[in-house]
Parts: sequence; C-alpha cells; structure tokens
Amino acid sequence: MELWFTEYQNNKLAYGYKISKHLHSEQTKFQRLDVVDTEQFGRMLILDGIVMTTIEDEFVYHEMISHVPLITHPNPKKVAVIGGGDGGAIREIIKHPSIEEAHLIEIDGRVIENSKKYLPEIACALDDPKVTIFVEDGIEFIKKNKNTYDVIMVDSTDPIGPAVGLFKKEFYQSVYDALKEDGLFVAQTESPFLNKDIIKPTYQAISEVFPITRLYLATIPTYPGFLWSFSMGSKKYKPEDADLSRAEAIASDTKYYNPEIHRSAFALPNFVRDLIAQK
Amino acid sequence: MELWFTEYQNNKLAYGYKISKHLHSEQTKFQRLDVVDTEQFGRMLILDGIVMTTIEDEFVYHEMISHVPLITHPNPKKVAVIGGGDGGAIREIIKHPSIEEAHLIEIDGRVIENSKKYLPEIACALDDPKVTIFVEDGIEFIKKNKNTYDVIMVDSTDPIGPAVGLFKKEFYQSVYDALKEDGLFVAQTESPFLNKDIIKPTYQAISEVFPITRLYLATIPTYPGFLWSFSMGSKKYKPEDADLSRAEAIASDTKYYNPEIHRSAFALPNFVRDLIAQK
Repeated sequence: MELWFTEYQNNKLAYGYKISKHLHSEQTKFQRLDVVDTEQFGRMLILDGIVMTTIEDEFVYHEMISHVPLITHPNPKKVAVIGGGDGGAIREIIKHPSIEEAHLIEIDGRVIENSKKYLPEIACALDDPKVTIFVEDGIEFIKKNKNTYDVIMVDSTDPIGPAVGLFKKEFYQSVYDALKEDGLFVAQTESPFLNKDIIKPTYQAISEVFPITRLYLATIPTYPGFLWSFSMGSKKYKPEDADLSRAEAIASDTKYYNPEIHRSAFALPNFVRDLIAQK
Repeated sequence: MELWFTEYQNNKLAYGYKISKHLHSEQTKFQRLDVVDTEQFGRMLILDGIVMTTIEDEFVYHEMISHVPLITHPNPKKVAVIGGGDGGAIREIIKHPSIEEAHLIEIDGRVIENSKKYLPEIACALDDPKVTIFVEDGIEFIKKNKNTYDVIMVDSTDPIGPAVGLFKKEFYQSVYDALKEDGLFVAQTESPFLNKDIIKPTYQAISEVFPITRLYLATIPTYPGFLWSFSMGSKKYKPEDADLSRAEAIASDTKYYNPEIHRSAFALPNFVRDLIAQK
C-alpha cells in the first residue's frame, strides 16, 4: 500500500506527497494537526490539510521572513513573531548578534509542543534564554504593547480560521503602534500566481498604515503558487539602504539568504508590479 | 465525474490539475501528446505525462529563456531555438527589432501542428516571415552549422527520451561551433530543488566548453521544483554588462521580464551557488 498526502487548492489543484511514515495526528483547540515523513521533502507539519513546513525546504521561508527585515533594520534588539509556532523564524532571529529579546506569540500551544517533539531541527531555538513564548492570540497580544518592538514578523497560516484577522488593516495599525518609532514589520502574504485577491488588498492596507511599503519574493516548493510574497511595512528604514556587510555575515550560516538575494528579492516581475500598483 | 491530470515525479510527488475539457491525445513518432483545459492554468500541453506549457504561466519560461540572452548579446540578428515547438520562445524572439532570422529546430512536427491548432496564443509567431521551421533532430542540425548564429536557445523537454543528448558536453561543443565568434547560448536546466543531479554536471560541462558560464533562475508554477534554472554559455558577452535600456524597451511588452529581473535572476541562493561551485 502506498500512502499519499494530498493538499487541495480550491478544488483546482492537488499537490500530492508520498508518505514514508505517518507519525502523528490530532485535533487541537484550533486546528487539525498532522506530522508525516515524506519521501521528497522529509518530515512535514500539516495544519488543516495545508503544508506548513518541511525539513527539506523550510530554510527558504524562515530565512526570508527573518533576515530581510532584520538586515533592513540597522540594530534590531527586541523582536516579536506572531504565529510561527514551529520555531523556524526564531531560530534565524537569534543568529543576529544584536538581538536581546525575541517574543513568540503563537495561538496554538500544540503547534509548539509538536514542533519540539517532531521537528527539533526547526524548533531548536525555542528554549534559548533570549526567547519568551506567549501562547496567546497574536491580535490581542499586539494590541496591548505600544512602542515596544524594533521588528515584528507575522508568520501566519493562510487567511482562513484563526489567521483571518492577521490580514486586516486594523491589525496592521496595531502592529504600527506596537513598533518603536523606527520599527518595521514583515508578513507572509501568499502567492502572486494563486492569491492575487489576497496580495492586492493586503499591500494596499499596509501602505495606508506605513510610510514605506515593499513587496519581496522567494520560491518555496511546498507552498502552492511557489512564488511566495512577503510584505514589509516600515516607519523609517528602506530595505534597499541596508548595510549588506551584515547580510554577508549572516550568509555564512544560511542556505538561501545572502546579500545578492536581499537586493534581488525586491525585483518584481511585471505582473506582480502591476498587481500592487493598482488601487 | 471530475477529471484530473496528475504529473508524477519519481513516484514521490504528484501534481494534479483539475480538467475542464480533454481536447486531444495522440501518440506521435516520438512521444505521447495531450492537450487539456485546466481550471487553474487554462489550456495545457502535456508530453509523455509532463506539463510542457500552459496558457496562464507560459510567459515566465518563454520570456526568461529568450530575453535574458537576447539582451545579453548587444545585437542579435540570427538565432536558433532547439526544441520549443510550441512557438513561445519564437514569439518572444521576434519582439526584438534587431532579429533578422529565427530558426526553429523541432524534432516532432506534431508538437508544432498541435500548438498552432490548440495554443494559438503561444504559437502565433511561427508563420512570421523572419521564422524558418526545421522539423529535424536538433543535435544533427546544429552539427551541420558552423559560425552561424548569434544566439542559440535550447528549449528542451526533461533529459529523457529524445532530449537526453541535449544535456551532454558533445552537444554543447556543437553549439559552441555553431555560434559566431561572439555568440552565446542558453539552455533550460531543470530545478535546483529536485534536479541537483542534472544541474551540476550540466553546468560543469558548459563551463568546460565556454569561457563564460552563468546560471539564472525564474519561478514557474507548473514545472516541478518551481525554482527553475537556465544555464548560459557565452564566448564574449556577460549578462551583467548588458545594456538594460534595451531590456526596458522589451519590458513594455512582457509580463515577467524587466531590467531588474534581468539583474536579479543571476542572484543565486546559497544552496544553488554551492551546487554549481562543486566540481
């Protein structure tokens, strides 16, 4: 018998992964959670039937959501990750010597616990003394904090279920208020091939809150659409002005990110430019 | 009843596309050929069970295999496409005002005929007076021509069946000989996520024949691995020295390519750099 896990996209696409071992399944308070070993991408965490991360390709997403904002900010000391319970963003964040405090705000504690158990390569920094974990609703958490963070990363699931509110203008305003006066934030904002209906209003909402807005791209082979977007809202710093000698230093310990990738990730194909240029 | 077409990769991955209409199937002299309408990507051409092109995403591949070399060469007049029977590369090539002659060398005439019938948006330039079609084996064709072309594009299928020889050093030597003294060529060379075993020896072979070798990337949502590589061998011109005012002019009529993409496509993630750096 062959075991396959198949992720469906709007009943138009079906991405199937051959499974060598089914390790765990549970219904948490918030979502269905599965852990499997796939033949192509190694161990895989699945939430509500959607691939969250895999051992073989997680480096792209986690490096790109972390290092691009942390190098854009000249001296990030205190950062928050909303979502990201697998710990991958945290692992990348603590590579930066300037970091003093990293807060992880994950709504579903079972994601953290299962990641520690089944994905130690990704969750390995969650017990670092610089890291504090809050098992809370990120939207409510961020409302309570004002003028607190240098960098915030919104490492969410797709905008369904608990993550819907993370793609709304009210949330971006709370993020703005939670950032210091020179702070900046990044959110994962889905694929320009499959999710034009998400990227366009999201980018527009961020640009209504922040004086500086940018979109950048990376290729992630287990996220449907594969060309993946991240949106940045910044109060002061622009990614194109970053000190790339710091990027060079970080790139000694990365698989994807480097100074050339930092620059080139903001080069947008015409169809993506057009998407975010429209009002 | 729902119809789905599924492309399998080494029995580890299965990429499924929901079909709204099955238009055509035949066994040609060389391969199985299918044409379907998919709900996500529109009309799709399939050869031997592998997606060749779709109406919705073909622009990425065809623009990137064409414009990058044609802008790298300062004045391309005579070009050849090996493979590419759908006509997409040809359509992009004739956008360049310097082009005087474009040769298409496709081994399977049925690909050309079916593309004209079912994919007119892609095949639309095959009857252009600057275009000459040769239904021949590209390997034998290119051996007969010496010092003839400014640019050659190897727009092949995966290295199985008739395309195996297009990934060998002997072929790259023939391409070198068929190019003028300042000529250059580009080949599609698969995905660095899934086809490390192809990219590494291919890049190595090209670098043994050509003084200048470069790898560049684009994201193609229907080619498994999705981060797709193109390898360039050049006798004289470097892509980083290209006159990007010509790229700007071409970009008025593209969906993906533009001057920033020209530059950024050569920025390689660390894991891709490492792949081609190894001997």
